[in-house]
Amino acid sequence: MKIGVDAMGGDYAPLHTVLGALLALDRLAPDSKVVLFGNERKIREICRSQQAGADRFEIVSAPQVIEMGEHPVKAFQQKKDSSLVAGFLSLQQGNVDAFAGAGNTGAMLVGAQSLLKTIKGVTRPCISAEFPIQSGGSALLLDVGLNADCRPDNLFEFGVLGSVYARTIMGIEHPRVALLNIGEEPDKGNMLTRETYQLMEGNPFFHFVGNIESSQLFGGTIADVIVTDGFAGNMVIKQAEGMFQLLKDFGFENAFFDRFDYEVYGGTPILGVNAPVVIGHGASTPRAMAHMILKAEATYTAGLVQKIKKAIYNE
Amino acid sequence: MKIGVDAMGGDYAPLHTVLGALLALDRLAPDSKVVLFGNERKIREICRSQQAGADRFEIVSAPQVIEMGEHPVKAFQQKKDSSLVAGFLSLQQGNVDAFAGAGNTGAMLVGAQSLLKTIKGVTRPCISAEFPIQSGGSALLLDVGLNADCRPDNLFEFGVLGSVYARTIMGIEHPRVALLNIGEEPDKGNMLTRETYQLMEGNPFFHFVGNIESSQLFGGTIADVIVTDGFAGNMVIKQAEGMFQLLKDFGFENAFFDRFDYEVYGGTPILGVNAPVVIGHGASTPRAMAHMILKAEATYTAGLVQKIKKAIYNE
Repeated sequence: MKIGVDAMGGDYAPLHTVLGALLALDRLAPDSKVVLFGNERKIREICRSQQAGADRFEIVSAPQVIEMGEHPVKAFQQKKDSSLVAGFLSLQQGNVDAFAGAGNTGAMLVGAQSLLKTIKGVTRPCISAEFPIQSGGSALLLDVGLNADCRPDNLFEFGVLGSVYARTIMGIEHPRVALLNIGEEPDKGNMLTRETYQLMEGNPFFHFVGNIESSQLFGGTIADVIVTDGFAGNMVIKQAEGMFQLLKDFGFENAFFDRFDYEVYGGTPILGVNAPVVIGHGASTPRAMAHMILKAEATYTAGLVQKIKKAIYNE
Repeated sequence: MKIGVDAMGGDYAPLHTVLGALLALDRLAPDSKVVLFGNERKIREICRSQQAGADRFEIVSAPQVIEMGEHPVKAFQQKKDSSLVAGFLSLQQGNVDAFAGAGNTGAMLVGAQSLLKTIKGVTRPCISAEFPIQSGGSALLLDVGLNADCRPDNLFEFGVLGSVYARTIMGIEHPRVALLNIGEEPDKGNMLTRETYQLMEGNPFFHFVGNIESSQLFGGTIADVIVTDGFAGNMVIKQAEGMFQLLKDFGFENAFFDRFDYEVYGGTPILGVNAPVVIGHGASTPRAMAHMILKAEATYTAGLVQKIKKAIYNE
């Protein structure tokens, strides 16, 4: 397979992207190939500085760069020669099988929605975050940022998408799906969660186990997949990141808490679009970039997109 | 002053309430008196078991108990002889100066709103949580649970209430007020936060410093008062509680993290009603109950209610 990578995406691009791609090479399947989109001269320079042959990659020259602060829609429409747009076009045309980038998140989303389109039956694509749980393994939270305002049917869809992701990528055979809320009883919460509970209860598309409170997230005893709107979800992961940072400042070393480190996860696929796209963290280190690339490989190899379609069409 | 306490409120009432009241006695001002509402026989028994004279309290017999699971409005209307209703009536009539309880939170709120009424100009009372910050001292988060669905003007009011609370109770002379959001820029967030930002920007009632992300809450460098809706606020404190519990499970001991322990804060005043009411945590230990009672004393002594009125009427 071919994994497209936006070499110019991220706060420390192209240095961290190319170093990450070099790190990833050792761990990718023998028939997986990395295609770097970006400034060819700079990419070759970094390879040379690492005594690594640039021939280990396929390089597609795309001189323009979409910066982090740019307006996503405008930038995507105007910068046709940017690494990000070139990567999406290549994915759309089937020249690469997956695309990963840590650049402007909004522009990544615009690319996914405008060129790849959402899967029929999905109203809103979303992104998810895996986090460690005390009982071992990981749990999944979604949406974590794409949809700040949601309706109950959006959250219902996230339940379907998250359930398929947990089975396909995380290897959880019968994922328990819970609704993030501020109380355990069905009538607790805000208008959104109260209505969503009614919609989810007893549904045949995923195994709904009820409400979960944020104090119970890390225990892992209640749910494998936790559904919420992008505002609350983003809040939860950023608070966990803040706590993780605080613990590091206090010199607390613990294997469990180390797993809160986003570097380990590298990136998150956009769930609900017609091809595998993985979004990385803007501040990604080379190690995080490597994991982002590996995540793109895993997403393609596991057939996530096909499995989501199957779950929605109930084929 | 006289501090009314719902002796029957809380998961381990009346034992923990009476033990907490005994603990508090040593730290209250000499002219502060605790009035216990509840089952007089049981209260006297507990005092006896502690070799403490029940004459250290004033006891008001109120045999009925509003249980944790009861419907707040119905329970408050029907159980006229309950410790909770008796306490609120006593506060309304001026027989006590403040009232504290760790029982049914909904019923506490019904009591506050129906008998004490909200302060003119306040649409929605709210509750707040103090939490430790890395730079020293504490910050304040509100609302943390009373108002799961909010409008921008509600959040604006919380900014006024929180600002007065920080000055009056926390001793922060010029509190910086921030809006909890999922991005720093004014146009980030959901519909609620984007509109609220416009409303708060440049207002003369409190010192608005912009958005704050949940990763920045514990640093303390951005804000002293953080405003959010009751859904997100409750989520944040419960996640912090969950993290605190996780750290305890891992045997991590740290003076900073110990301050996340709700026992230290004991309770939170209902902000925006016409008399001091403090709500405690249902699972309160005697130590937490003692702090709840001390918080009621501090709220009255500092003149919080009067200062909120002054801030709203701009007198």
